[in-house]
Amino acid sequence: MKSQFRQVALVGKYQATAAGAGGASSKHALEKIAHFLMDHGCDVVVEKDTAANMGLHRYTEMDVAGIGESCDLCLVVGGDGTMLGIGRQLAQYGVPLIGINQGRLGFITDIPFDKFQSSLLPMLAGEFEEDHRGLMQARVMRDGHCVFSALAMNDVVVNRGATSGMVELRVEVDGHFVANQRADGLIIATPTGSTAYSLSAGGPLLHPSIPGWVMVPIAPHTLSNRPIVLANIAEIAIEIVAGRDASANFDMQSLATLMHGDRIVVTQSQHHVRFLHPRGWSYFDTLRQKLHWNEGAV
Amino acid sequence: MKSQFRQVALVGKYQATAAGAGGASSKHALEKIAHFLMDHGCDVVVEKDTAANMGLHRYTEMDVAGIGESCDLCLVVGGDGTMLGIGRQLAQYGVPLIGINQGRLGFITDIPFDKFQSSLLPMLAGEFEEDHRGLMQARVMRDGHCVFSALAMNDVVVNRGATSGMVELRVEVDGHFVANQRADGLIIATPTGSTAYSLSAGGPLLHPSIPGWVMVPIAPHTLSNRPIVLANIAEIAIEIVAGRDASANFDMQSLATLMHGDRIVVTQSQHHVRFLHPRGWSYFDTLRQKLHWNEGAV
Amino acid sequence: MKSQFRQVALVGKYQATAAGAGGASSKHALEKIAHFLMDHGCDVVVEKDTAANMGLHRYTEMDVAGIGESCDLCLVVGGDGTMLGIGRQLAQYGVPLIGINQGRLGFITDIPFDKFQSSLLPMLAGEFEEDHRGLMQARVMRDGHCVFSALAMNDVVVNRGATSGMVELRVEVDGHFVANQRADGLIIATPTGSTAYSLSAGGPLLHPSIPGWVMVPIAPHTLSNRPIVLANIAEIAIEIVAGRDASANFDMQSLATLMHGDRIVVTQSQHHVRFLHPRGWSYFDTLRQKLHWNEGAV
Amino acid sequence: MKSQFRQVALVGKYQATAAGAGGASSKHALEKIAHFLMDHGCDVVVEKDTAANMGLHRYTEMDVAGIGESCDLCLVVGGDGTMLGIGRQLAQYGVPLIGINQGRLGFITDIPFDKFQSSLLPMLAGEFEEDHRGLMQARVMRDGHCVFSALAMNDVVVNRGATSGMVELRVEVDGHFVANQRADGLIIATPTGSTAYSLSAGGPLLHPSIPGWVMVPIAPHTLSNRPIVLANIAEIAIEIVAGRDASANFDMQSLATLMHGDRIVVTQSQHHVRFLHPRGWSYFDTLRQKLHWNEGAV
Repeated sequence: MKSQFRQVALVGKYQATAAGAGGASSKHALEKIAHFLMDHGCDVVVEKDTAANMGLHRYTEMDVAGIGESCDLCLVVGGDGTMLGIGRQLAQYGVPLIGINQGRLGFITDIPFDKFQSSLLPMLAGEFEEDHRGLMQARVMRDGHCVFSALAMNDVVVNRGATSGMVELRVEVDGHFVANQRADGLIIATPTGSTAYSLSAGGPLLHPSIPGWVMVPIAPHTLSNRPIVLANIAEIAIEIVAGRDASANFDMQSLATLMHGDRIVVTQSQHHVRFLHPRGWSYFDTLRQKLHWNEGAV
Repeated sequence: MKSQFRQVALVGKYQATAAGAGGASSKHALEKIAHFLMDHGCDVVVEKDTAANMGLHRYTEMDVAGIGESCDLCLVVGGDGTMLGIGRQLAQYGVPLIGINQGRLGFITDIPFDKFQSSLLPMLAGEFEEDHRGLMQARVMRDGHCVFSALAMNDVVVNRGATSGMVELRVEVDGHFVANQRADGLIIATPTGSTAYSLSAGGPLLHPSIPGWVMVPIAPHTLSNRPIVLANIAEIAIEIVAGRDASANFDMQSLATLMHGDRIVVTQSQHHVRFLHPRGWSYFDTLRQKLHWNEGAV
Repeated sequence: MKSQFRQVALVGKYQATAAGAGGASSKHALEKIAHFLMDHGCDVVVEKDTAANMGLHRYTEMDVAGIGESCDLCLVVGGDGTMLGIGRQLAQYGVPLIGINQGRLGFITDIPFDKFQSSLLPMLAGEFEEDHRGLMQARVMRDGHCVFSALAMNDVVVNRGATSGMVELRVEVDGHFVANQRADGLIIATPTGSTAYSLSAGGPLLHPSIPGWVMVPIAPHTLSNRPIVLANIAEIAIEIVAGRDASANFDMQSLATLMHGDRIVVTQSQHHVRFLHPRGWSYFDTLRQKLHWNEGAV
Repeated sequence: MKSQFRQVALVGKYQATAAGAGGASSKHALEKIAHFLMDHGCDVVVEKDTAANMGLHRYTEMDVAGIGESCDLCLVVGGDGTMLGIGRQLAQYGVPLIGINQGRLGFITDIPFDKFQSSLLPMLAGEFEEDHRGLMQARVMRDGHCVFSALAMNDVVVNRGATSGMVELRVEVDGHFVANQRADGLIIATPTGSTAYSLSAGGPLLHPSIPGWVMVPIAPHTLSNRPIVLANIAEIAIEIVAGRDASANFDMQSLATLMHGDRIVVTQSQHHVRFLHPRGWSYFDTLRQKLHWNEGAV
């Protein structure tokens, strides 16, 4: 079999602690995958930081932008966090991603390392399920200017300072006033993010095919302030009305210096991320395993 | 001003008790609206049962099917329940509905009777917001045959018998196994139904523009069995696996004789209901008022 | 070692299906435990129904009342349900209970059958933790007369008919009006019952030492109708105000014919159940295991 | 009628903004109450800061400690926050408190200013309901030393830093390991605090007579980490295991510099606060009004 993907990038997650822990990947694992890819006719590219962290310098090295422009596929060896981070950067290039996990499987990194060959073989031959995930484009507006901008695959979170009381947030959707919410904070999550922080805060699961975001208040003062699912074509604006030391978080990046009157504006990104899964993959199988349904648990 | 809607139907809710209570409408109110409509050039049709219950026989009378085939607009004087019932029947005809309420406003019946003239005037002239709501087509399959079929605007509910323990329900989406759920029951709600029973059971609000249903377990045995929002193009099947005296409920209609192996299958109806609201109407204003947000409530 | 408990009763759970399934016990297991007890100087009594169901007729047989009057200890081989059923009957006699489980351990039946010898040995010698659980005394009052009375170790549940809408229940505590609740139903649970149905319906866990009950509405119409923990010295009264086919459930026993005006009155029983656990037993260990805390679960 | 309370202290809440807003009290109101008290034979003492803030210098002035040692009753004119703050300080002296509110009534400050005369008259004569509330004694232990100590009437909260991820907290009760919780934080609330932050985070209501605290995780990673009610005679210890910038909050006071290994230890205070309410007062009436039960709300 010859791979339908000619140039394939490898991204690993470096961690000082033992391999396998928390989604880390080992040099040995990356090399084994690289050999497998070359055996099936792929040109292997190793992401620059991965190469440096792992001491893996026998392959072509590229930064993520280079991978986006040149590669046909990106294999991520790590956990969901690594996968989401790379996915966010590759979205604009349309390069598909496959996630391989050396530890406990994630929601997205669903191929266990010890079975990577049998899983990848048909995928390289074009046998896979394709799963598209939307991104949020978030901007922070102050006095009419954009002072911060970021993409988010999981969620945009606005929250109170650690040692202060509630924040008060004014929410608008497409210019319509929704409510002033007093709470610890507010999460806007994508379907991808609906299995993460949003779920802990009481949000529902959103199937990846739902063209919507869920807005979930964190410990809201008003008990009827319930999670609400909004269309992703809407523009959601959250304005800081009251509360000290409010901050915002966009997937990984924090912005700690929000001021009264600042508006966090969330719209749909024009890009999406392409995840590839083995043929027969089902979102529901993943949910069931990750959430321990049907295990006789209370 | 001359109405853009030529033939307009009037539907009221008869109740033995005092007018205005719980969404009831009075003969006096219906007559006042009828006169108003005629004054603006409309032909008035009164729904047959309404005419009989109210003793309102001066107008053309039609049953709901006749209204669907002949009328350009249907004015419902009552509460959300009446509106949903008529809406479900008119969906296949495409006749738009306007809701007028003599009591406490509902989520859908949002024009107070004492302001009906000023609200309706611009609407008859073509100034309105149009709000489309999807319907579910539900069937009960037994041994491969459909033994029951119904449309639902709010929700399809499968639940345990009153004096028996949990039911066990096998859920499939588009043929993919989701989970076996042990619970008091399972709700599948439309965005319209997301403010009703589903909300009481812990479900999120769904904006009417979301092309999805929310599936909400009622008192689930497994604590991680959380509400999940599914695309409305999916086919959801719920099979009775265990539990005595399970029953199903489709908006208003109950089916009490479910047997093990019965499958309740929910798909999207090809029709939708058209609600008209006054210009400037906002779904969020209604939510905020009905859920008592921003009232200083705990 | 000689047992401090002279006369020891054995109760098993008969089930037509395979031993070990769902808390069932096998004849073989009961005989092994009986021999072990005799080896340590105990007189063995087998509960009458257990003897009949298992064909275990070599021992003295007594019904539960006889066990209560004559025995010093009761060993239950089964699941939590069996244990609670026997415990409820033995409460008035003060006979302590130990639970041995052939299947998945329960909240109360915490000694695995395959380790029963090493667990029981020190317990027979007087080395154990004693764990007292309160009971509720529930009565149904109609026109001033008590028409039904039962003890409950887990919960008293009032709920709607299967195919009817919400019930409306008027709640009073010590004669003080609390609220009219519209809901699917209402649970009053003991600390023991707080890990059962109450938990599924959104109730908190109550440590067994808490002298209180938790009242949990099931799918309440009013979102601020939240679970409330009440002192167990209070008298809680629930009156059926509206709704068809309401029923009540007291642990295992159902009463299906409730009428408007019926009052379910719950007070503390003067008795309590005595469970014995191996030395070092911790309620929190059980919780952690049963609820799958600290397993990396989402 | 002559008051049974000879020396009565007055405490007000100063606020720069308009009287009545958010529990503030006005000079005029305090003077009116002072005259009323003197008319009924009381010696009036004004709390020192109140006197300074209001410019109310015609009365004896004392600080809170002085009030505790000399006064027979303390009237607080303000909101629940003010009442709790003064109550916490007076607990050790046993001085009872009455709350008068110029704005929206609170859970504890339940006498509206415009009816204070008719409410207070019988209370001064000895006709009242007495309502005792427990306090938590919280200490922060570092390397075996107590580095911080505080009383709390509402809650002790441990939470993550604003821009960091979850904290991991190890919970022990009376030396028994309960669980390692990963969450935004953890609340331990008294019955008094169960209607405050704890309720927003999903905790149950605790009747004031319950001798327990409720421990409520905030947005817990593990969905089965549910609120648990613990006996107030237990010692609860929370150790910071992981997470940056964790902080703790004791009613009003924040401690922002928690380090890994720090233990927040909560025990019952030997003191309690005495609130007096008008004869016929019912905790449930207050709940029903504050939580908007029975208002036809969704």
